[in-house]
Amino acid sequence: MVLTKDVDHPDHCKQYFDSIVLVHQAFPALRLEDVDLRAKFLKYEVNAPVIITGMTGGHPEVYSVNEKLATIAEVLRIPIGVGSMRPVLVKRGDTAVAETYKVVRRVARDVPVIGNIGAVNLPGLDERVFIDLVNEFELDALAVHLNPAQEVVQPEGETGFTVEVVEAVVRLAKAVKVPLIVKEVGNGLSMEAVSVFYSKGIRIFDVAGACGTNWVSVEKHRLPENDVRRFVAESLSSWGIPTPAAIVEARYIAPDATIIASGGVWDGLRAAKSISLGADLVGLAKPLLKKLLLEGYEQALKFMEAYIQTLKTVMFLTSSRNTFELRRRPIVILGPLLEYLKQRGVDVNEYVMAR
Amino acid sequence: MVLTKDVDHPDHCKQYFDSIVLVHQAFPALRLEDVDLRAKFLKYEVNAPVIITGMTGGHPEVYSVNEKLATIAEVLRIPIGVGSMRPVLVKRGDTAVAETYKVVRRVARDVPVIGNIGAVNLPGLDERVFIDLVNEFELDALAVHLNPAQEVVQPEGETGFTVEVVEAVVRLAKAVKVPLIVKEVGNGLSMEAVSVFYSKGIRIFDVAGACGTNWVSVEKHRLPENDVRRFVAESLSSWGIPTPAAIVEARYIAPDATIIASGGVWDGLRAAKSISLGADLVGLAKPLLKKLLLEGYEQALKFMEAYIQTLKTVMFLTSSRNTFELRRRPIVILGPLLEYLKQRGVDVNEYVMAR
Amino acid sequence: MVLTKDVDHPDHCKQYFDSIVLVHQAFPALRLEDVDLRAKFLKYEVNAPVIITGMTGGHPEVYSVNEKLATIAEVLRIPIGVGSMRPVLVKRGDTAVAETYKVVRRVARDVPVIGNIGAVNLPGLDERVFIDLVNEFELDALAVHLNPAQEVVQPEGETGFTVEVVEAVVRLAKAVKVPLIVKEVGNGLSMEAVSVFYSKGIRIFDVAGACGTNWVSVEKHRLPENDVRRFVAESLSSWGIPTPAAIVEARYIAPDATIIASGGVWDGLRAAKSISLGADLVGLAKPLLKKLLLEGYEQALKFMEAYIQTLKTVMFLTSSRNTFELRRRPIVILGPLLEYLKQRGVDVNEYVMAR
Amino acid sequence: MVLTKDVDHPDHCKQYFDSIVLVHQAFPALRLEDVDLRAKFLKYEVNAPVIITGMTGGHPEVYSVNEKLATIAEVLRIPIGVGSMRPVLVKRGDTAVAETYKVVRRVARDVPVIGNIGAVNLPGLDERVFIDLVNEFELDALAVHLNPAQEVVQPEGETGFTVEVVEAVVRLAKAVKVPLIVKEVGNGLSMEAVSVFYSKGIRIFDVAGACGTNWVSVEKHRLPENDVRRFVAESLSSWGIPTPAAIVEARYIAPDATIIASGGVWDGLRAAKSISLGADLVGLAKPLLKKLLLEGYEQALKFMEAYIQTLKTVMFLTSSRNTFELRRRPIVILGPLLEYLKQRGVDVNEYVMAR
Ligand SMILES: Cc1cc2nc3c(=O)[nH]c(=O)nc-3n(C[C@H](O)[C@H](O)[C@H](O)COP(=O)(O)O)c2cc1C
Ligand SMILES: Cc1cc2nc3c(=O)[nH]c(=O)nc-3n(C[C@H](O)[C@H](O)[C@H](O)COP(=O)(O)O)c2cc1C
Ligand SMILES: Cc1cc2nc3c(=O)[nH]c(=O)nc-3n(C[C@H](O)[C@H](O)[C@H](O)COP(=O)(O)O)c2cc1C
Ligand SMILES: Cc1cc2nc3c(=O)[nH]c(=O)nc-3n(C[C@H](O)[C@H](O)[C@H](O)COP(=O)(O)O)c2cc1C
Repeated sequence: MVLTKDVDHPDHCKQYFDSIVLVHQAFPALRLEDVDLRAKFLKYEVNAPVIITGMTGGHPEVYSVNEKLATIAEVLRIPIGVGSMRPVLVKRGDTAVAETYKVVRRVARDVPVIGNIGAVNLPGLDERVFIDLVNEFELDALAVHLNPAQEVVQPEGETGFTVEVVEAVVRLAKAVKVPLIVKEVGNGLSMEAVSVFYSKGIRIFDVAGACGTNWVSVEKHRLPENDVRRFVAESLSSWGIPTPAAIVEARYIAPDATIIASGGVWDGLRAAKSISLGADLVGLAKPLLKKLLLEGYEQALKFMEAYIQTLKTVMFLTSSRNTFELRRRPIVILGPLLEYLKQRGVDVNEYVMAR
Repeated sequence: MVLTKDVDHPDHCKQYFDSIVLVHQAFPALRLEDVDLRAKFLKYEVNAPVIITGMTGGHPEVYSVNEKLATIAEVLRIPIGVGSMRPVLVKRGDTAVAETYKVVRRVARDVPVIGNIGAVNLPGLDERVFIDLVNEFELDALAVHLNPAQEVVQPEGETGFTVEVVEAVVRLAKAVKVPLIVKEVGNGLSMEAVSVFYSKGIRIFDVAGACGTNWVSVEKHRLPENDVRRFVAESLSSWGIPTPAAIVEARYIAPDATIIASGGVWDGLRAAKSISLGADLVGLAKPLLKKLLLEGYEQALKFMEAYIQTLKTVMFLTSSRNTFELRRRPIVILGPLLEYLKQRGVDVNEYVMAR
Repeated sequence: MVLTKDVDHPDHCKQYFDSIVLVHQAFPALRLEDVDLRAKFLKYEVNAPVIITGMTGGHPEVYSVNEKLATIAEVLRIPIGVGSMRPVLVKRGDTAVAETYKVVRRVARDVPVIGNIGAVNLPGLDERVFIDLVNEFELDALAVHLNPAQEVVQPEGETGFTVEVVEAVVRLAKAVKVPLIVKEVGNGLSMEAVSVFYSKGIRIFDVAGACGTNWVSVEKHRLPENDVRRFVAESLSSWGIPTPAAIVEARYIAPDATIIASGGVWDGLRAAKSISLGADLVGLAKPLLKKLLLEGYEQALKFMEAYIQTLKTVMFLTSSRNTFELRRRPIVILGPLLEYLKQRGVDVNEYVMAR
Repeated sequence: MVLTKDVDHPDHCKQYFDSIVLVHQAFPALRLEDVDLRAKFLKYEVNAPVIITGMTGGHPEVYSVNEKLATIAEVLRIPIGVGSMRPVLVKRGDTAVAETYKVVRRVARDVPVIGNIGAVNLPGLDERVFIDLVNEFELDALAVHLNPAQEVVQPEGETGFTVEVVEAVVRLAKAVKVPLIVKEVGNGLSMEAVSVFYSKGIRIFDVAGACGTNWVSVEKHRLPENDVRRFVAESLSSWGIPTPAAIVEARYIAPDATIIASGGVWDGLRAAKSISLGADLVGLAKPLLKKLLLEGYEQALKFMEAYIQTLKTVMFLTSSRNTFELRRRPIVILGPLLEYLKQRGVDVNEYVMAR
């Protein structure tokens, strides 16, 4: 459904991404092959700062999907996340369920594999469950997703995003040996949201802004025709923080954190813009899944290769040897992004200097 | 006619409402059910700050329309207004006419019921008429509408919006025991218009801005083909103050007044934006009537439920426990609204802090 | 041709006119009939500050066109101009030619009648010719048009817009007993152009900005298929100063002059905006001619009545008793007009206060 | 291919060129024939500041194309460049190849003829090769093109844009007796790129901005269906610096250099805007070639005549006797160009004064 129905944020924030102009350098002072995309992430050295963020898992029929995504990650040496591991916790001992996740680690041996769990479900659960999970599934990090908009319109949504959730996240962070990543699922992290978890020691954030898949629209289609929440979902079809704005929101509040830009970061040019704007890595989810399911493994792999090659090309054309240099290169920020940031209290010139 | 012909303001001010961005909070720090929409209005505690503003009354065939609107108001516990009560005054003693209004009070027992009269017709009338009216119809407030644009293009329009009108309003306010509400009908209240009545003690304003129904366009269709006023109406098809601008115009001049935002505030997201921008309550008229007449009572009720549920959801997603908190949460104001306000002398940063 | 082919400025400067927002006053503090449109112009008291600017004359077949336009002017008591009187000078003694102009004065007895001549043709002519012309045709003023863009693309265009032209205009102004009006024909007067003639004592300007008919495009159709000037004309299809900008350009340089706003000022709302922005009167040409030729005298008259009635209505709705008050009422100037004016060195706030 | 497939920058930067407004002068104070387009360039006096920039050469079948382009240049007395002379170097002694270039000089006897070579290929070559080349082909200047974006997506692209390239350019500049021109091929020169060569003594730059042909899109069509670079090319379909921005970038850094504006400068109005913005000359390539190949020599010649005549007309209508005056006349710079320049650190008011 997420692949066929129109469930994306309208226009994919074209205006917001067009607000960012990277300056072409006719004399890059380097060769394409000098561009080094390698990045350190979760103790691994990966080949590109590009993450396949968490999508599937749980249903036995997605086993092979995860297997293929993991193969792509392993072949390209890039990090990969899995979908929510709630099914594992709910169906303890069901090996078919567990295997849909384990296959990722098995295949993607040499890159970070990231577990996934909903923040709102944590308060009811014992941390030891996660210590075991991390061990058993050999996870390199655990992504905790915040998805209040999705929960509101979900058939059995749970909306208790209370202080107990923060406490549970903190307890979890202390209990497990691997880092926690706080992420959204497509409506974006704000300064305020990042601040809550940054102040408690979380140092990795995936902004998952409102420029790609909109879960509110996805969930709409799962609701009965006459459910009031369908109308709610319709009014919120473009709800959320545009990804470029969310990148700055996060970086502004968490200058030393690892920021992952995702949510409609669907080609290498957008990836370069996101990194230039302040992200350390980019993530993408739906377009890769779509390629895989509609066109098969080979095309999906090629899509990712092209994505990375485009990022590399833009870095070359902006005279950037690596992502560190990319963030030092000139960036032009126009309205509406410029206006948005001003109104949010960000001194854009200062931000651009400091990013 | 108002339901079938295209008589709305072009585009419903999409640009102006898009100028207002509420910031999604991935961690709202509350649960959906913690959001408390209750509001005090006219000595009642209502379930949501949403008013069904005055539309019909007078013609015996609208009896059942008003009955159903009142049922919705009563079921949802929200305030309701009736259409202009001029017919009652003109046809004294005609019980069929009176009943079309009385049914509202009879059905909507536990919520504010608001009477309605045109300001321009007041000078000719004795206040005692209204004392009786308020008593007989058990009104909780009396809405006095200013509709100069409509009057100009009305077949027998009366355009005497002179100082006598203000005097009559003031006399009326003193005579009746219930509060007076000064409202427009779809072209918006300006700072100047609010100021005139605020300085005379009026403390409730319904801005009825130019983003929903445009009465000038409605009236056009009632004029003979060759009437010069048809051409006038055509040139004025988008005349008036956009609702978001009108909200600020009113609040800026009347900081302690009760401001009702209406005029194209047709979904819960626009309602939330209006309140965040400075309104206390929102009002809507045409879309509810349309649902009722075209799809029946059940769908109309569901429409209103969804409207309120969307407002509640947006408050949840902006981490607002109530409308007071909603007004304290971050708001981003972009052009053209930003430019409009600057040019009107409003220091937007200061306004945002003080709202 | 000018009526059928698409020879207007693209979009009629929608963006520039939308840049001007007049603020609706729900309480105008007057009645529609209190609005007084009367204006003093060229020693006449006319019924509205609306001029039918110069178009036709010369060809005997336009006799009846001018007769009807004059009838409209006389019936509505508004000023009227005639087309270029060059044919009279070229064909001295040809009464058929002369009559096409004289009919205007004969019919429009009680309103200003304005003669017309191209500035670029003046240097070759003796002022006494014009003294006679003014007497013989009983003109109340003489409009001298500047049309360099038109001349460039005209089959036998004359482009000598040199200092001799200014000298000839000055001599002419001194010679004739009636005021001179300097006007464009649809590409707009700039500060610089106004300044040249203002400094020499001219006190009436018709800006004729680039929002209505574009003569460059008109002339294009008269050129042979392969004429290089056709290509030139195509590149200049939107050349010129948008009328709203031109109004401010003129007023800024000539604070005490009489400024006529024309060029796409094709409805009463645009008329009101133009006056609010600083014009004393408005002018229109093509739409009236079009109505007349395509729909006849009755519809043309009605069109003008509606135009004036719309202007009156907007004045009423902005609480303006007369055009003087209209210029004192709030005006909101947004981009691109705002940006244009800033870049031209106009302090917009100051301008708005002083207009 | 470059002529039939859609390989241009989207929209040809309409927004950016519309950001530049030249002010119409209804009284130019001169005659059209007073406008003097003559320019000094490379020791020649040419009839207009318009260059036919380098395109073809090498394949014997383009002999006649170059012959006709040269005829146009000679007839109109304007400078002309040839396409990359790499074939001459690669196929030494092949007279058929050499003749495709020599014809240009032979025909265009009285105007500057500009040679052409890719910067990235210089390091491998001995300067003496170019000394001979300049002598043998009687070149008046040598254009060295920077085309990193094109190289990336070219089947056998060479991307070594390293410091050796600068050194080779400097050596070349010293070796040959004619000036060197550093140019892009359609993605624009930045401040940084200009600065590198300006600091080494280069004094002529052709910005070749991203508003005309996009070589990235051209090359795409030459790649095999499944080549990853096709995807890269797709993501970069609008990559580069818009020509108006590039003009200012170059002029800002190189105040005393000769700046050629090209890249979508496809009519005389755009030419005038480019010069007003700071360019000394303009260049154009693809539209002339297209005219020539699709409509023949006569139409191509006429196209260039009209181009120059339009430039002359706009100069007339802005009261500019020559390009020096054109740069002194008022220019209005609106967003997005205005915003872009501000964000690049350019004080626009100061720039406008100093240009
Ligand atoms: C099919 C699908 C399933 C997803 N499942 C999860 C999930 O279980 N947990 C999670 O944190 N995010 C999930 N996401 C969100 C993604 O990780 C990502 O944040 C979001 O889709 C934005 O990236 P995109 O625009 O590239 O798709 C899912 C996304 C998709 C498309
Ligand atoms: C059918 C209809 C009848 C109305 N009648 C009245 C009226 O009698 N008195 C009044 O004050 N407003 C009247 N209004 C105006 C509404 O109260 C409201 O101010 C306006 O329609 C803007 O709200 P909306 O955009 O939600 O429709 C009427 C509106 C409609 C659609
Ligand atoms: C058919 C026609 C003929 C015109 N002839 C003249 C003329 O002879 N002299 C002149 O000064 N302006 C002439 N004009 C220009 C108008 O007076 C006016 O300045 C211009 O059309 C802009 O107004 P508009 O947009 O309302 O048409 C003519 C306009 C039209 C449409
Ligand atoms: C068919 C064609 C071939 C070109 N070949 C060259 C070349 O060999 N060397 C070069 O420096 N530029 C070359 N260019 C680029 C042009 O010189 C020019 O910089 C660019 O096309 C932008 O101008 P335009 O938008 O007017 O086409 C070529 C352009 C075209 C259209």
